[in-house]
This record gives sequence, structure tokens and C-alpha cells, in this order.
Amino acid sequence: MNLRKYLIVLAIGMAAATTLAVGCAPAANSGGNAVASGGNSDKHDDDDDDHKHDGIKLSHEEMEKGKNIFFNRCAGCHGVLRKGATGPNIEPESTRKKGTAYLEAMITNGSPAGMPEWGKSGILSPDEVKLMARYVQNDPPPPPERSLKEIKESYKLYVPVDKRPTAPPAGRNWQNYFGVVLRDVGKVAIIDGDTYELVNIVNSGFAVHILRSSASGRYFYSIGRDGKVGMIDLWMDKPDIVAEVKALNEARSVETTKFEGYLDKYVIVGGYWPPMLVIMKGDTLEPIRVVSTSSYEIDNGEFVREARVAAIVADHHSPTWMVNIKETGQVWSVDYSQLGDGNGPLGIRMIAAERYLHDGGWDSSRRYLLMAANARHKISVIDTKTQKLVANVETKGQVPHPGRGANVNHAQHGPLWATGHIGSNHISFIGTDPEGHASNAWKVVKLVELPGIGGGNLFIKTHPNSRHVYCDRALNPDKELADSIYVIDADTLEVKKTLLLPEEFRGHKAVHMEYNKQGTEVWVAAWGRKDQKGAIIVYDDKTLEIKKIITGDWMVTPTGKFNVFNTMNDIY
Amino acid sequence: MNLRKYLIVLAIGMAAATTLAVGCAPAANSGGNAVASGGNSDKHDDDDDDHKHDGIKLSHEEMEKGKNIFFNRCAGCHGVLRKGATGPNIEPESTRKKGTAYLEAMITNGSPAGMPEWGKSGILSPDEVKLMARYVQNDPPPPPERSLKEIKESYKLYVPVDKRPTAPPAGRNWQNYFGVVLRDVGKVAIIDGDTYELVNIVNSGFAVHILRSSASGRYFYSIGRDGKVGMIDLWMDKPDIVAEVKALNEARSVETTKFEGYLDKYVIVGGYWPPMLVIMKGDTLEPIRVVSTSSYEIDNGEFVREARVAAIVADHHSPTWMVNIKETGQVWSVDYSQLGDGNGPLGIRMIAAERYLHDGGWDSSRRYLLMAANARHKISVIDTKTQKLVANVETKGQVPHPGRGANVNHAQHGPLWATGHIGSNHISFIGTDPEGHASNAWKVVKLVELPGIGGGNLFIKTHPNSRHVYCDRALNPDKELADSIYVIDADTLEVKKTLLLPEEFRGHKAVHMEYNKQGTEVWVAAWGRKDQKGAIIVYDDKTLEIKKIITGDWMVTPTGKFNVFNTMNDIY
Repeated sequence: MNLRKYLIVLAIGMAAATTLAVGCAPAANSGGNAVASGGNSDKHDDDDDDHKHDGIKLSHEEMEKGKNIFFNRCAGCHGVLRKGATGPNIEPESTRKKGTAYLEAMITNGSPAGMPEWGKSGILSPDEVKLMARYVQNDPPPPPERSLKEIKESYKLYVPVDKRPTAPPAGRNWQNYFGVVLRDVGKVAIIDGDTYELVNIVNSGFAVHILRSSASGRYFYSIGRDGKVGMIDLWMDKPDIVAEVKALNEARSVETTKFEGYLDKYVIVGGYWPPMLVIMKGDTLEPIRVVSTSSYEIDNGEFVREARVAAIVADHHSPTWMVNIKETGQVWSVDYSQLGDGNGPLGIRMIAAERYLHDGGWDSSRRYLLMAANARHKISVIDTKTQKLVANVETKGQVPHPGRGANVNHAQHGPLWATGHIGSNHISFIGTDPEGHASNAWKVVKLVELPGIGGGNLFIKTHPNSRHVYCDRALNPDKELADSIYVIDADTLEVKKTLLLPEEFRGHKAVHMEYNKQGTEVWVAAWGRKDQKGAIIVYDDKTLEIKKIITGDWMVTPTGKFNVFNTMNDIY
Repeated sequence: MNLRKYLIVLAIGMAAATTLAVGCAPAANSGGNAVASGGNSDKHDDDDDDHKHDGIKLSHEEMEKGKNIFFNRCAGCHGVLRKGATGPNIEPESTRKKGTAYLEAMITNGSPAGMPEWGKSGILSPDEVKLMARYVQNDPPPPPERSLKEIKESYKLYVPVDKRPTAPPAGRNWQNYFGVVLRDVGKVAIIDGDTYELVNIVNSGFAVHILRSSASGRYFYSIGRDGKVGMIDLWMDKPDIVAEVKALNEARSVETTKFEGYLDKYVIVGGYWPPMLVIMKGDTLEPIRVVSTSSYEIDNGEFVREARVAAIVADHHSPTWMVNIKETGQVWSVDYSQLGDGNGPLGIRMIAAERYLHDGGWDSSRRYLLMAANARHKISVIDTKTQKLVANVETKGQVPHPGRGANVNHAQHGPLWATGHIGSNHISFIGTDPEGHASNAWKVVKLVELPGIGGGNLFIKTHPNSRHVYCDRALNPDKELADSIYVIDADTLEVKKTLLLPEEFRGHKAVHMEYNKQGTEVWVAAWGRKDQKGAIIVYDDKTLEIKKIITGDWMVTPTGKFNVFNTMNDIY
């Protein structure tokens, strides 16, 4: 599939992703040079210029409304500073040349290059479209900063450590719980993986992006797109939020500490805005340290104020987090071993990789970390033992989006790690064993093409007890393809079967797979609109038949789902 | 001396420092909260506001002229973003309340709080004063960024490595050369310390701030206030610039690599603007890596865009530089061991210390680094073995300014390190031997008061072969005190003698001491105006008599002077 087609797919995909919301939103970047350095643009506040653009002046209330809409609908792709990333640069220098009429048409109808049809879809009213066409011709208001002091002021400890249960819930196999993000209603459902019972629905707040388990598995940490972090105690009979903090204005990632001696000690969240890391205590979420991620990108060394934090992965073998700084193309290895109560030294090792870093996960040995550099269609491989970049692997697909990826031990090729792509129908299996299978290492040893036209894959998943690899295609514009889950045979590395959503959930999207603890079942979300009943479809991994459909009036916009045992142990 | 008096001293001192220029300009900060987070200030570009302030509108040419004057005269104290540091915050929100008339008076006459009398002194013309009073009521123009690509474009290699001498100059004891900064004429004089001969005058460019020796001693690296780095090869018969690069827009610090196996391998410079580190190859000055220093300060965790780099000190025992990030109050330990050609990993360990970090140096064991936190009148002590903060020592004086400090081994108190103060007449001797002299460690064990009123000390110096400690007082408003060098007996720790500049150089300032290689002579600058002949006064360390006066028509505004052997070996 060529780039032009990918862009069309992406356009519609992005619109869907933005309107319906997605558990792990794609951040495909349209090019390598969209994000430039900060601070160089001329301001447009002199009289002459204003007279030429009288029509764009906004009242205070209009500016406030525009700011709000921009933050919720536009900033994710264009950046709060409008310097571009997924979408192009739309600073006034460029928007003023386009003019109000052009901008209104663009905001209404979208574009094949990826702009959603905000007006046509009814998400923005005609008045709002008109407002935004003028708003983006004004200088961007300075985005809010966030100090550690302010973050601390937002911190709420609802249940102190000594008021929490001292033993796990009786009669429950709590390590087989699933946390299911009900995204558009701002809730997380806790479901018993043994019995399929709904254990509780937790009010997590606006647009939870992901959940991560603490190393002990006892806590789920949630991160909202609005930067709110929640901590859910699974030992409660009705698991609920025990602490929360508004760490950031916009965020995507949260992780805990997994090195021996530091279990559940710290939690880290990464900011889309402000571009920063916020570190909290693992048992209370008390914020203790902040670090800026603004720095220089690796291509031309240009300053990037808006250097956003994508995936964060805890190392099991050392006291570090591996942090993707998207726009700069650097992976930061953050050493928390001396941090103490927050004032101790924090070590950051800056490893130049590739742009723009998004998501990724471990190989099966958990020595190598494979991170998608989605603008360059590459996977950057970091050796966490030497703390160095090992390779930038061409995936042979367009816009890799692995989630955490999927690890397969193949009889002939040895250990492989797989990623799918948003922009093409390729699943790439990459060799990850430089010692045992040197000739395969850091190469695509098998390229699977999914049937049908176009990409749209968001996630890929397997389990050590399974010989299957599952791939979704939720962002494909073809409704049937978006309803499909592809099962790849781990031995032949060929597509073995296509699973379609059950009849009653057709037209929903099939998104995000998760195994149960034993690796015998795969849970898939049927992700509908906010006014529809969604479902979790449970497949038997052996027979590939539907074993259970979990649904109910409460099952609204299910997206990501996280099994406690698999998440705490990074099983994928 | 109380703070009020100190401020008056500082006012005049700063004016002198700014007009005559000083080898190592003080950066005393008036308070702990002057530098706030970036990006929060409202812009003042709406119509209503503009009409109220019609008188402040500037033409394009006026803006350009204002920008230029601000950068050269104002930014050093108020910051390019005007958020304050040494001087107060002067963003438009504050300046507009003051109004044009007030601002004109302030810029003309200065203030007891430290503002130089720009108009009265004739440095700014009445028209320029009027312009600046209006300029500072306008929004600050976005300051220039500087990418690695741009830095590379400015790089000039005049003499490649293979075209340079392969042996030291015959008949010269080149390790006893002195590099003398002739500041206001943009030159560096290389003087033979054995013969007092002028070996060459090197055109180094605008306002060289300091020189540092490469670990081998062969090269001097110069850093200008304008961010230009020069590399002088001392093995040439006429030592001259072999490479240069405009690394930054404003800078103060340069350092080389001193760990075994990395001798002369890299050079690092620290930015005042942009706030960044620039790393170059040690043998060619080819720029290879940039890192932003913008981050969060340690008090309230507020974002500081303008987080300036003060002193940088190379560790002899590990492959690291210790870097003072002034406004954030952090010392960064920067690990260059894996950097390779510039793309390898760079390690940064962020150590919270105290605000605002300025200059400092090693204890005699070179394990502990003592850094002045001048807004808090403290010395932050970093143990470079454990890479942790050991203590924040109250100096009992006002605004410590140690330069590199002075190490004395005292019979009773053990190893001591001394600092003087800009804001008071105290010389503080601090115990640095926690193992051998635990009860003295990280305490002021002796506080010497210099005779006469007021501070103004900039530098302090000693040598292992000397039993004297020399202190200047160049920023004292009393002309006779500013002409004085105080000699403290290293055994009694009392002032033993006051040396005055020779009659013909009275009214100059006596500034910055440096020993010869053997530690038998002390060189002091008689630092006059640009239209005066200055001098280096050479004192015999035993007799404290003048041994030689080095002067000539070329000796204009001598300030810092750096002996090759002492600088390469961190002898002080």
C-alpha cells in the first residue's frame, strides 16, 4: 500500500479515532520535519498587520472558547504550540496566508491528508467552525505551565495506606482481573477473568488512555488524556480509586517500578503538555519530582519545546524506566535508584534513536526494547544492558504501531517480535536473538500481509501459552475490515483465520486484544459509539470460537483492557 | 556588612563590572524568587491595551536597536526573557505600571539595588535611554534559538590537526605560559612566565570571559560572552587560533575532559542563551552534541526556560563534567564516556543543590566539589564519588563568589577550602575533610574579615607551594580598597599584609590572581579603562614585593590570567 493510500486511510482513521476515541490513539507523524524549533516565529501584533486581518480579532470569550476547542480537538495532532507533529504546522504565519474561507472549508470537510471532517461529522457546529477558522489565525496563547507545587495542590489521597485491606479479596483470583477502559464515559470496569463478573465500575474521569499494573499487581494506575492519574486498589471488595492527582494538562503514559527492591515504589507519568516527567510515590501517588523533556531533536539539533512523552516501559533488570521522547527521537533511560523521597539525584541517559518515537515493548528476554519510530517506518532497538541503540530496523510497512508488540519463539527463526502498522497491511516479524540467531537479528524475517486493502492495525498480541498472534484493524475505513481480528499461526507465520465481531456488534470496531492469565482466552473489545452498547468478546484460543460475550448497559465504548497478571509481568 | 550596604556596593560594582567588563562577572542574585516559570505571562497585544500605551509603540528599526542594546546591556542581569535573576523581573506587566518617565529616570540614574546608571555614565545616550524606556514596555521579542546545524555552520577549522606542530616550541617552558584576557579589545595575550616576554597577541573576539587549558595543557580554549569558542595552540611559535565556533548567543563557561583515556577528547560550553550545553571535539572544536538545560527549579518545581549554565568543572576521577545550572539550583553530572562521535548516549545525573548556582571548584582531594549558591549565601558540596549532595554550608557572608576557591592545609584544622564574597568583607574557610577532621567538615572553621567597609571580593587564590592566600576586592566602591590585594597567612589565617597597586596604576582595579607554575610568584591585573594602559603586577610570594611590572601599549583591560600548568591541573 502506498503512502497516498495510507494517508486516506489515516484521514478517516484519525477522524474515527478522534470522534470515538481509542484506547491507544495513533500518533503517526506525517513527516520528519514538521516539528521545528520553538521561539523563532515572529509575533503578529503590530498595527499594520492587525488592520489587514481585522476579521480575525476575537473577543475574550471567543478566545477562551477557541482555546478550549483547540486543546480538545486540535492540539493532539497540531501541538499546543501549533508547530505540527501528526498534523502540519498551523502557526499564524501559515494560516493567515490560507485565509478564513479556506480554513472554514478545511475544518468542515477535513482533508485526505488526515484532517478529520469536524463540521460534516457534527462534532463542531457551523459557528464553532467559523470561530476556529479565525482562532487559528491569531497567535497561540501561551500554553499553561505546571509547577510541582501546583501538581501537589491537586493531589488527593482518599484512602491512606493503613486504611486499605491487608489481604487480597477472599474467593477471588484477583490476578486474573481485567481492567477495561470505558473511554467516553470516563470509567474503568473491573471484570473477574475467571467468572466474567463485573466486580466494580470505577469513576476514573475524562478519557482514560491506558491502565498499568503496579509490579505487585495490586494496583491499577490509570492515566487520562487530561493528565489525571488514578490509583485503583484491587484488594478492595469493590476496587476503587484510593488516590488521584492531576499531574499534567495532557498525557498518554504511566508506568511503575519493576526492579527488585523498588516494587511499587514510584509511579511516573509522561506529559504531552507540559512536556515533562512527573514522578510520584507508588503507594500514595504523592508527587515528588518533575523533569522537563524539552530538548534538541536528533536530526538537525533544533530545539523542541513541545517534546512529548510517548511510551514509558519499566526495566525488570535495572532500576530504570525507558522513556520515549517523541519529537526529539531520543529514548531516555531514567534511573530512579537514588531518588529517595524525591530530592535525591535522578539519572537520565539520553540515547539517540529515531523520530518520532511512539510505542513499543520488550523482546522475550526483556533485554532489548523495541520502540516504533513511526515517521521513519522503523523500529529502534535499545539494548538495556549496554544502554545503547543497537539498530533502527526498517519494518517494510508504513507507520508501525506495535502497542507493546508480540513475542513468538519460532522453531526455525528463533525468537521474534512483531509489529503491525497503521498505514499498511503488513505485520513484520523481527529477529531478536543476536546470540542464538545472529543472521536474523534486527531484520524483518517474515512480512505477513493481511487480506484486504489498507492498514489500520493498532494492536498485536500473543502469550507464551498460545501459538497464535492476534491483530486488530480498527482504523481501517472498510467497516468489515475494522470489524475483523486476524489470527496468525505462530508456527507457519501465516494468517490462519479471520474472526468477525458477532452479528449484533457489526459496525462497531474490533479493537485491542488481551489474554487471560492462563493464556487460554483472548478478550477483544467491540467498540461502538457512546450511544451504543459495546461488548467484550471472549474467544477460546484453541478453538478460536466465541466463548463468552460480556455486555450490559454499562459497557459503553470499551477500548483497552488489561489483565493484571499479564500487565504486571509484561507478557505479550 | 548588612544587605542594604551590600546592595549599594553591588550597585556600583555592577556598574563598574558592566562598563569596564570583568574577567569573571558576578552573578549575585537579589532573591530566591525572581526567576519564575516561563510562558505564563499574558501577552499585551489586544487593542484596548495598545491604545492605553500608544506612546510605547516602536518602529521596526527602533525595535531592532532596542533588542541589540537590551541583549548587550540588560539581559545579563534581567534575562533575555526579562523574568529576572540578578535584576528584578521587568516583563511588560511590571514595566507598564511604572510608566515611561519612571523608567527613563531609572535607566539614567540607576538604583541602590544594583541598577547601573546607564544614562549618567554616558554609556547610553539620552535618546537611547528614551528608546529603552519604551522598549521594555513592549513584549520581549522571541529570543533566537540555535540549532546544532546552525552551530556547525559557524564552525571554522583554520589549522587541521595534521598541520599543527608535532613538538612543543624549542627553548620555551610553555607550561609556564600565561593566557591573559585583554577583555575590551577582544584579545588574549600569551606571556612567557619564565621571561615575562609577550609571546603573541591572539585575536579572540568580543569580550572573552575565561580561558581553560586542555588536559594536556597544549591548548587554551576561550569562551566569549557572545558564545564564541576559540582554540589556541600553544605549541606554535606564535600561539594562535586554530579553530573557532559560535556555539551560543551568550555564554560564560568552557571546560575540557580530564579523565584518563579522554584527555583533550571533548570540549563543553554552557549557554546563558540559549540555555544549553554544546559539546565539541577536543582537537578540532567540531560541534557534535547539544542538550537543553531548561527544566524545573528545586524550590517549587516551576519551569525555568532560561536556566543558565554557570561554572563547569571537569572531574579527574571519572568521565564527567560537573555543571552548575544556575536558576534551577541543580548540579548536573554529565557523563561523556559513551558519547563517541556525538551520537552515543549521554548520561546526566541531576543533583538538587541550592539556588542560584554560580562558580566553585575542588577541595584538595578533588573528591568534593564546592559550588556557590549565591542567592542563599551558601556553598553546596557535592561528593563526586557518591554523586550526591553532602551539605549546603552557610558561609556567614553575603553572596559568596569563590572563582575556583583556595585550598589550604592547616596544621590544626586540616584541609580547608576558602571563598570570598561580593556582598560582604568575609573570607570563609570551610573544613573539607570529613574523614580526618570530621568535626570541621562542611563548617566555616574560620571567618576572616577584610579591613575597611564593604565586600567586592571577586577572586581568591593560593598554591600548594605557598603559605599565602590572596584576595582581591575589585568591586568595592572605595577606590583604594578596589586597588588592594589582601594576603592571608595560611597558618594564622589572619590578614598579614595589604598590597596596593603601584602609584602609576592607582585608580585601576586590582583583580584576579594567578600563580606561576612553581608557585613562587603571584600575577595580579591592574585593570583600567579601555583608554588606559593596564598592567600585570608580579609579586614575589615570599617577600610580597613587586618583582616585575608587565605593561605596554598592548596591555589594555587585562582581567583574568591563566597559567597553563595550574589551570590544566586545577591547582588553587
